[in-house]
Amino acid sequence: MKRLAILGSTGSIGQSTLSIVESYPERYSVATLAAGRNIEAAFEQVERWRPRMISLATGELASQLARRLREKGITGVEVIWGTAGSVACATHPEADFVVSAIVGVAGLEATHAAILAGKPIGLANKECMVAAGEILTRDARLRNVPLLPIDSEHNAIHQCLRVGERNEVKQIWLTASGGPFRQLPLEDFAKITPEQALKHPTWVMGQRITIDSATMLNKGLEVIEACRLFDLPPSQVRVTVHPQSTVHSLVEYVDGSILAQISVTDMRLPILYALAYPERPASSLTFDLATLSRLDFEPPDFARFPCLRLAYEAAEAGGAHSIALNAADEVAVEAFLRRGIPFSGIPRTIEEVLEETPAHHPETIAGVLEADSQARERAREVISAAAMRV
Amino acid sequence: MKRLAILGSTGSIGQSTLSIVESYPERYSVATLAAGRNIEAAFEQVERWRPRMISLATGELASQLARRLREKGITGVEVIWGTAGSVACATHPEADFVVSAIVGVAGLEATHAAILAGKPIGLANKECMVAAGEILTRDARLRNVPLLPIDSEHNAIHQCLRVGERNEVKQIWLTASGGPFRQLPLEDFAKITPEQALKHPTWVMGQRITIDSATMLNKGLEVIEACRLFDLPPSQVRVTVHPQSTVHSLVEYVDGSILAQISVTDMRLPILYALAYPERPASSLTFDLATLSRLDFEPPDFARFPCLRLAYEAAEAGGAHSIALNAADEVAVEAFLRRGIPFSGIPRTIEEVLEETPAHHPETIAGVLEADSQARERAREVISAAAMRV
Repeated sequence: MKRLAILGSTGSIGQSTLSIVESYPERYSVATLAAGRNIEAAFEQVERWRPRMISLATGELASQLARRLREKGITGVEVIWGTAGSVACATHPEADFVVSAIVGVAGLEATHAAILAGKPIGLANKECMVAAGEILTRDARLRNVPLLPIDSEHNAIHQCLRVGERNEVKQIWLTASGGPFRQLPLEDFAKITPEQALKHPTWVMGQRITIDSATMLNKGLEVIEACRLFDLPPSQVRVTVHPQSTVHSLVEYVDGSILAQISVTDMRLPILYALAYPERPASSLTFDLATLSRLDFEPPDFARFPCLRLAYEAAEAGGAHSIALNAADEVAVEAFLRRGIPFSGIPRTIEEVLEETPAHHPETIAGVLEADSQARERAREVISAAAMRV
Repeated sequence: MKRLAILGSTGSIGQSTLSIVESYPERYSVATLAAGRNIEAAFEQVERWRPRMISLATGELASQLARRLREKGITGVEVIWGTAGSVACATHPEADFVVSAIVGVAGLEATHAAILAGKPIGLANKECMVAAGEILTRDARLRNVPLLPIDSEHNAIHQCLRVGERNEVKQIWLTASGGPFRQLPLEDFAKITPEQALKHPTWVMGQRITIDSATMLNKGLEVIEACRLFDLPPSQVRVTVHPQSTVHSLVEYVDGSILAQISVTDMRLPILYALAYPERPASSLTFDLATLSRLDFEPPDFARFPCLRLAYEAAEAGGAHSIALNAADEVAVEAFLRRGIPFSGIPRTIEEVLEETPAHHPETIAGVLEADSQARERAREVISAAAMRV
């Protein structure tokens, strides 16, 4: 029985993880939950799963939840809050495995604490790896802690890497849906509205990741994540546009063999893989190969998607530049969604921030968070200055 | 340094194997060669590779070759012939690895002898596995002898099977080009001429395998080969028609993940894989994923390709039925090529022979060869009787 700490339990990955626990009660149970601000969902999860501990975003939310639990007569659940709360959930002595799915760098300290505590990690938070991948992989290696990717692309790569040795890998290929603007004429990019950008062709996701998918910055973050997770230089991490999103990624070996992983588009599959690794339990998430009709692949258009180029540059520079890429993008996407900047302002903002970012490799999580704040600040300045110019 | 015994050295697989030896002189050398009737090619191979031993089809050919070698002053090469000759090549004490690529059941005794002598086998002769797979895999298991498939489909499966445990495999999928008549209207099948059938869309191959590709009997033989090699029941070995022949085969796991192997259509790649396993040397046989544009998959049409249905039935029955399928097909294809029977007469002949075949599982290679002769005899009778009826 693996007892799970689920960081980000009320988000989409957290809910899918709980659905796996529901399907495999003989394999998994819930030790701790780190939720966010959705107190209703948090209450229901405590009622259903009776964890040892739950953490919420703030002390006020924690008090509210504790009160509701008392009213319902639910006892034995420690209710805590904030970053210290997530860290306590991640390092709880009864947790055997940590699912890291808090969106953004908010999950960083808890994920790092879990690694330092020697807990195996199922990693669904790509920002963690982008901002602090150098630190997290270093500390995981030192402690021999497995980092199992839950992102479908990286999960596919993890599977395909089992068919050879690391020095036999020529390059890996991350597949990209190409987003809604794959075929939009280049001159129409300036006029893209938030409403258009929020329509994703294949996956239903949060707002930021949907916009990141439209700019392909999301794929760029995945390139950096892959570099860190699999210890590969950016030149060995390639992107191929595959609109059907059926092949989740591929590994090309030096002898010429390419291994690809195909499955349904359902996050429960990579979650189950990460939780059960190296085993593969049977699931109902099967892909009917008889229905497979056509798969397309094409090279990404770097002119249409400058964010992808910027991400490769940030991957190469590493450290503060990776951090700044992610931070500046988050700020720029928010500005785009509130119509503060046009769609093409997203890469422009990131590029300006990156240009102002000094070469620097933080050695600690505190250093990463500081570089992150500085980049956000710079991004806000860049956006204000642009607004002034208009 | 691996020293190779190459059985079928003047055939297409044999030549490709020698081209691998040429490319990797630090890894491979030639110990022995079993050639066929092409004395010119055999002479050139001896001159180039200086094996310890070469075997030819007949004593007369062997004498001719020995004379030519003497005239050229080439010494130290033992020239022998026949089945005993192939067996001696396969079991030569200086051979570390045997490439089994003699077409048809002719390679059976030598392959079996190599297994009994504990030599690892690179298996390119599917008829061996179809006719005697039960015996060969039993004896290989007893002696812990690796059987590494060189057929591109089975080689792909071998690779994809490394991503999980055997009990985690739901089913395997062999890809089929579908042959030249994939889209021909059913009513035109009776009129297919040998000239039409000999045009294969993707691979350049021998005559029998080209006709077998057009009837899809070839894929049926591969189904049986896969059942024996990977110890799977026919229900777990599926066929998917994939006209581009880019995905060489796939393995579907119980959790819903499907692993696929993609590469250029070049036999040197699976040969290199088999020779080097578990290593993967770098090669120039690379596939440019950026050129991958479209992959199609569709279920095979069992009405259009009755040979495929017959092969599944023979796979299920095993033993004498697998033997009879292969033997009857070879006789029927010869009859079709000399216009003795129509295209649709191939499956009709096989079906009649299978119906007359008693349930029987030969325990020895001699028993297999006897069942093979009996099936060929029955096939000739069926074809004569059909000619009488016309």
